[in-house]
Amino acid sequence: MTINTYISQIAPSDQKTGEEAQKHLDSLAKPPGSLGELEVIARKICAITGSLHPKIEKKVILVLAADNGVVEEGVSCTPQSVTAKQTVNMLRGVTGVGVLAGHYGIDLMVADVGICTNIKYPGLIQEKIRLSTGNITREPAMERQEAERAILVGIRLVKEAAQRGYEVIGTGEMGIGNTTTSSAVLAALLGKEENQIEEVIGRGGGLTEEGFLRKREVIRKAVKFHQPDRSDPIDVLCKVGGLDLAAMTGVYLGAAYCRLPVVIDGFISITAALCAVRLCPAVADYLFASHSSAERGYQIAAEELSIRPSLAMGMRLGEGSGCPLFMGLMDAAMAVYERMATFAEAEIDDSYLNPIRD
Amino acid sequence: MTINTYISQIAPSDQKTGEEAQKHLDSLAKPPGSLGELEVIARKICAITGSLHPKIEKKVILVLAADNGVVEEGVSCTPQSVTAKQTVNMLRGVTGVGVLAGHYGIDLMVADVGICTNIKYPGLIQEKIRLSTGNITREPAMERQEAERAILVGIRLVKEAAQRGYEVIGTGEMGIGNTTTSSAVLAALLGKEENQIEEVIGRGGGLTEEGFLRKREVIRKAVKFHQPDRSDPIDVLCKVGGLDLAAMTGVYLGAAYCRLPVVIDGFISITAALCAVRLCPAVADYLFASHSSAERGYQIAAEELSIRPSLAMGMRLGEGSGCPLFMGLMDAAMAVYERMATFAEAEIDDSYLNPIRD
Repeated sequence: MTINTYISQIAPSDQKTGEEAQKHLDSLAKPPGSLGELEVIARKICAITGSLHPKIEKKVILVLAADNGVVEEGVSCTPQSVTAKQTVNMLRGVTGVGVLAGHYGIDLMVADVGICTNIKYPGLIQEKIRLSTGNITREPAMERQEAERAILVGIRLVKEAAQRGYEVIGTGEMGIGNTTTSSAVLAALLGKEENQIEEVIGRGGGLTEEGFLRKREVIRKAVKFHQPDRSDPIDVLCKVGGLDLAAMTGVYLGAAYCRLPVVIDGFISITAALCAVRLCPAVADYLFASHSSAERGYQIAAEELSIRPSLAMGMRLGEGSGCPLFMGLMDAAMAVYERMATFAEAEIDDSYLNPIRD
Repeated sequence: MTINTYISQIAPSDQKTGEEAQKHLDSLAKPPGSLGELEVIARKICAITGSLHPKIEKKVILVLAADNGVVEEGVSCTPQSVTAKQTVNMLRGVTGVGVLAGHYGIDLMVADVGICTNIKYPGLIQEKIRLSTGNITREPAMERQEAERAILVGIRLVKEAAQRGYEVIGTGEMGIGNTTTSSAVLAALLGKEENQIEEVIGRGGGLTEEGFLRKREVIRKAVKFHQPDRSDPIDVLCKVGGLDLAAMTGVYLGAAYCRLPVVIDGFISITAALCAVRLCPAVADYLFASHSSAERGYQIAAEELSIRPSLAMGMRLGEGSGCPLFMGLMDAAMAVYERMATFAEAEIDDSYLNPIRD
């Protein structure tokens, strides 16, 4: 199946079920709407699954790992070899997302879609499209066909996850240099002029002022050099993006195709979500924002997607580390939805009460 | 023991242990500070408990229930009898906080400190100071001695909880009309002029515009009539506060006295936290803000306390319903702290890696 075939089969979520879920939420013994996002989350899960008693027990975070040729330009304070090392450490369960997923009983599926070294490690999904991308300041990140293949990998991974019984999908990544590519993609998608590009550029893993200025120049140069077609997200991805971003775009498309809730992590993750929504607006119905990343640019992407994160924790680790925290809140939302008393059930046998002032 | 005796024995948290915890956090394989509030929470728990491997398994939310005479003025859209009914429903586990606490494996201790009816229900802690408070538009909410007794009840409940092995305390309340008393207390503590009082008044359970204007007038009238001494939180509590607010103030003092982390819920809860900090500034070290309540005034109190909530979910139910969600994040913070690999541990055996571009 081609990307377009998948897209043609993605439908908006089931608003009728969503409205019925809302009726139930409004019947619970509380001021209407007073549980805020917990109510929004529960309603949305019902609409996505088309069920008034959805199951969201089995959860998985899909982590896409790839290297970025642009690191040659000195845009990261972390050596490139960390991509491979931390990918292995994810499978060992000792990175941020590894520990948090383990804590919440959430599984990880980690795929190599373009790490610059060949890795073998038990459990690592081998889907390498190529060894790293090109340096976007002077060549496209990848061929258009490669971007398309990466997107299809993302879709296929979700289909596999769905077949294995997963009911909620989270998105994660590992790839030194990927805040640079994400900023370039976001700048291109939003049609930022050269003097506005700074709005979508942050300090990633912790750049110095000097490193930040270099990163900004690199992104300006790349966007100017390639002039990606902002109406064509695949053009943007292959010219200034990354293999992780392309595969994550596929994960969002795949989740919508499989009618599964999908959780956005941080800046890289939300940039891919925007690519997916630009390819297929109905994907927006399936997205959940987890936390407002401290990385500059996240907020702009969130506004563009009209999506509101529930967590404000100043996190900027990436990896998918915000997803487990939010998945915990999804469970809490469904607990409220399923177990709170309705106004009728909240009536109390008067024998317990001995009114004095009534 | 008197309140002042307790206060004299409250010490700041252990900053040395906090600094050692931070050193450990900085040794973990991630950009420094990139886990944001998860790091802040872990460090703070270490400082409070004075331990580099603190235990925070057993958690309890103390719910203080009381009625408010001011409801006679039509400041709430909910009938007063709901205080008693929902107090019983909490013990049945079917209110918002009941369901959420159950979901997270957190216990509730529910105490009647001033419900206007006499209730008997298995598990309800009988600590009634009086049957409801007075109508603050024309009389003090309570005698000063009664406020002091309510504070001591709060302290004693935490001591009991500590004896029963609880390691984290949450705060909750049930009391129709208590956003009105909280706004009055906050306005008095902050010395708001008559024309600024509106800044700390919200719509509670869902007042109409007409109801809101009435509530504003009631609060203005009460504050003007009593002129509480803002430098004396107990004077403020007994004149325009409530028994729930006074007992919750005691819960914060008790938690700091017992060196236990204590979680703030929403608007009523943070108003009591401010009372406690004004009585004893060292209490601030023990406080955790859970969520930014949608109730107007919360943000002003949070700024006054220099405290930053981790959850932004637009919730405004009260009861303590934000505490379980945040307690889940505390567990996640400790999981990261205890289980993430350090930079040294994150080094990977080269046999897995076959560098191509390095």
